Parts: sequence; C-alpha cells; structure tokens
Amino acid sequence: MFRFIPRNENFFELFDMAANNILNGARVLKEMVEEGGTEERVDRMKDLEHEGDRITHDTVKMLNQTFVTPFDREDIHALICGLDDIMDLLDAVGCKYYMYKLKDSPAPVKELAEIIYRSAEETVRAISYLEKLDKTIHHICIELNSLENDADRIVRSAIAGLFDMEKDPFSLIKWKELYETLEETIDRFEDVANILEAIIVKHA
Amino acid sequence: MFRFIPRNENFFELFDMAANNILNGARVLKEMVEEGGTEERVDRMKDLEHEGDRITHDTVKMLNQTFVTPFDREDIHALICGLDDIMDLLDAVGCKYYMYKLKDSPAPVKELAEIIYRSAEETVRAISYLEKLDKTIHHICIELNSLENDADRIVRSAIAGLFDMEKDPFSLIKWKELYETLEETIDRFEDVANILEAIIVKHA
Amino acid sequence: MFRFIPRNENFFELFDMAANNILNGARVLKEMVEEGGTEERVDRMKDLEHEGDRITHDTVKMLNQTFVTPFDREDIHALICGLDDIMDLLDAVGCKYYMYKLKDSPAPVKELAEIIYRSAEETVRAISYLEKLDKTIHHICIELNSLENDADRIVRSAIAGLFDMEKDPFSLIKWKELYETLEETIDRFEDVANILEAIIVKHA
Repeated sequence: MFRFIPRNENFFELFDMAANNILNGARVLKEMVEEGGTEERVDRMKDLEHEGDRITHDTVKMLNQTFVTPFDREDIHALICGLDDIMDLLDAVGCKYYMYKLKDSPAPVKELAEIIYRSAEETVRAISYLEKLDKTIHHICIELNSLENDADRIVRSAIAGLFDMEKDPFSLIKWKELYETLEETIDRFEDVANILEAIIVKHA
Repeated sequence: MFRFIPRNENFFELFDMAANNILNGARVLKEMVEEGGTEERVDRMKDLEHEGDRITHDTVKMLNQTFVTPFDREDIHALICGLDDIMDLLDAVGCKYYMYKLKDSPAPVKELAEIIYRSAEETVRAISYLEKLDKTIHHICIELNSLENDADRIVRSAIAGLFDMEKDPFSLIKWKELYETLEETIDRFEDVANILEAIIVKHA
Repeated sequence: MFRFIPRNENFFELFDMAANNILNGARVLKEMVEEGGTEERVDRMKDLEHEGDRITHDTVKMLNQTFVTPFDREDIHALICGLDDIMDLLDAVGCKYYMYKLKDSPAPVKELAEIIYRSAEETVRAISYLEKLDKTIHHICIELNSLENDADRIVRSAIAGLFDMEKDPFSLIKWKELYETLEETIDRFEDVANILEAIIVKHA
C-alpha cells in the first residue's frame, strides 16, 4: 500500500475537531440560556461557527486531494457537512437570542439546551470510535435518537403551552421560533447519528 | 449472473410498502381534516411514521448489503428518502392538528387533504410500474405535477384570505403554518415524481 | 477522443442560460421592490421560474444521455440544481409580494434586492469563466461570500427593528417572512459559489 499525503488519518482528526467545536458551541448555548444572550456570548458563538466553516473547508479540500479515503468519499462529505449544519444552527440560535433580546429563558428552553449539550458529548464520543469502526457507535446512535425523541416531546408541549398562555403575539413569535430552531439543531444531531450508523453498517 | 441475497426484487416490495404506508397516512389525514384531529388519529399517524422509518431503514440496510441493484444505488436511496420525507410531513401535519387544537378545518384545508390523498394514490400506482420501467410512470408524474400546481394556487389564495379575514394573530399563525406544511407535503410528492421520472429517462 | 452528442460544451451554454435567467429575475425583483409587486411583475417572475425549470430539465436530461462530461456528473447536477433553487426563491419572493399585498418596501428590502442583483451579476460572470476553469472564479466566490455576509447583517438588524417598531402583528409576520425569503435567496447564491469553488479546486 502506498502512503498518500495528506494521510487518511487526518480525516479523523478533522471530524474530532468539528465535533469538539460543536461541544464548545453547546457550552456557550447553555451559558446563554442560563445567564443571558449577551453580545460577548453571541460573538463567541459566531467565532465557533467560523471555526466550523474552516474545518469543513479543510476537510472538503483534503477530500478532493486524496485518492484513498478511509471510507466512501460521499460518507466523509455527508459527515462533515452534517457536523457543519449543527454548528450553523447553534449560531442561528445565538443570533436569535440577541436579535430578539430574549431574556429569562423558560424551563423547556433550558431542558433543550441540556439535551443539545448531551448530544454534543455523545457525538464527540461516537466520532472517537469511528477510526476503529467500533460497534459502540451503534449504542451512541440509539442514545442520540432517544435524546431527539425527548426533545420532540418537550418542543411540542412548549409550543402548545405558548398558544395557551402567551397573550403577546410578538413574544409568541419569538419563542416559537427559538423552540423550532432548537428542535432543528437536535434533529441535525440525529442526522449525524444516521450517517455514522450507515458507515458502521457498510463496514460490518 | 449470480443471485445475491437479498434478492433485488425486494427493493420493489419495499418501495411498494413505503408508498402504501403513505396512502394510509393520507387516509388518516382526511379523517382528521373532516372529523377532527383526535389523539387516537394523531397516534395512528405517528405509528405510520414509525413504520415508514422501519421501511426506510430496511431499504438502506439492504442497499448497503447488495452488490447488484436494479438501478443506480443513488436513485434507490433518493427514492426511499423521498417517500420517507412525505410520511414525516404527514406526521408533522398530524402533530400540528393536535398541538394547535385545530378544529373545523376550512374548505381549502379539505381540498388540500384531498389532493394529498390523490397524490398518494398516484404514487402507489407509479411505484407499481417501476419494476417494468413502464412509461405510464411518465403520465403519472405529469398528473402529480398538475396536482402540485393546484395545491400551490389553493395555498396562496388561502393564506392571502387569512390575512384579509382573520382578526386573531394566534389563529392566523396556526392556520398559516398548517397550510405551509400541507403545501410542503405536496411538494415532496413532486420530488418523488421527479426521481421516478429521472429513473425512467435513464433507462429509456 | 470521440465526439459525443450532445456536445459537452452545451452544458456551459445551459449554465449560462440559467444564470442569465436569474439575472432577469433579479431585475424584476428590483422593479417590484422599487415600484410595487404588480400582477404583471409577479407573472413575469413566474414565467422566468418556468424557464428555469425547462433549463434544469434539459440539463438533467443531457446529463443522463452524455458519457463524457466536462466535469463530475454530481457537480453538474449540483450546479444546475443550485441555480434552479435561486430562481425558485426569487419567484417565492414575487409570490409573497402579491399574496401579502406588500407596498412601500422599507429601505433594507431595497438594499437586499440590490445585493441580489449584484450577486446575480457575479454569478453570470463566474459561470462565464467556468469552461476555462479560470481562477478568477475564486475571487468572484469571495465577493459572493462577502455579499452574503452583508445581507445577513441587514436582515438581522431589519428583523430586530420590526420587533422594536411594528405595532401590527400581521404586518410583522408579512415583512419578517419577506426578509427571511430574501436572505434564503442570497444564501443559495453562496451555495452556488461553493459548488463553483469546489469544481475549480478539484481541477487545480
């Protein structure tokens, strides 16, 4: 076997960087939700989003320059784009916090931020098993699916609650959109889980 | 030629199951729209959505284990994901019925549910012609496109009507979102039609 | 080398047609924004959208009938679909102008229509360099990215302004959705820029 430059293993380093970048974003989100969406926090999230763009760009560039890839090119592409989508949505949540001057997050928002944080931790963990195609990934994917189901229930009941309780339509519009963006973020974690699972199945 | 297990023909069985599952969902939607989005109906829709997930999962798994596929792998993947998207959106409509406590659906909602039902019937029919690559599919796709155009017009005039007549912003938000989700569902039928047409063209 | 019919060069003609079609759409949008979304303008936009569909359809058909393509099939497909998405969104903006009876566009809407027009000009220009894989495309992509960043800032501050100033929730819902659709249109230009850049990088 020949050695190609850049080495295949670097793909795993890039995936790991992308996943840890998301974990950092999830940490900033928890701060926003618990202590407020200050300009400083929104800026930090934006910086992480740019860092995510750089990692994605480097991965796609490497993909275009590498002949032998550790698994199917399309799976590498789907995985890095899936991770990038998560970071973009975390940034979208951050922007809404600032744009809508959201304060005093209600309980379901805090629960969803916690689910996002746990999903990010699980994603970092799943990525760490990827190089060895360790079947543990399968269990992590089940966990990510279960977190997404929890989030679904929370969002649905929170939005129903908004329509029952909120008297101000402007406020309803803001929080409803925040819930929907949080839900979409968690859906993207599930997409990444599905991509990881497909990779494991292919190489079983 | 060797025989691989699972047999290629099973792909057509799975497509047929996915399309009939959608038809069942369209039937539940019609009940919701005509007689109310009861918890029982929302649960039945959710069950169909899970069934759709299982069919999609089985298809992707089979795809990853089969060497000779009846047509391009990417087309099989696009088709089963397209069918899955339709079922997911039918379930999203069901959830909104329940979450927003929607009652007494206005006439355009009933017309859209009818278009969805007819689109589902046409999709089942198109899929039944797929194995023989029968050109009848071409005519069905034209019919699906025409149903989508009708739906577009209905949705646009219904939403314009909401802004003209609805005095309660909360109610406008709910129905507007329902119309948009119904429209998106019908758009996904058109996507499936385009995928089917591309397969036929490739093998012409 | 053999000559295949249709000739490869035709792909570039089709890309050029799609990009110029978008430029025409951007011109109609500027008229709408400056002088009102009359039925005649909305119809002209719809005609351009149909023209875009025809160009996309011809390209996909040619792709399915051509053995030797000027670059990767999936890149040709992604490019023509990306251009089609832009035209679809321009039409969606047109529909909203009419459906919501939007009049007297505020300043940020005019700025965004101008950004869309400039993005369309840059896209036509980038496409004209594609056949020679001219590196000028790289600079155009940077420009398109920078236009998208400007648009992001404008949209965010315009929507924040709506929540600060607008007293009528119905009016807020309409303009907020218009801003979001304009932003999405500009995002799709950036997607096309990314596809173009990836093609250049691959052939560097």
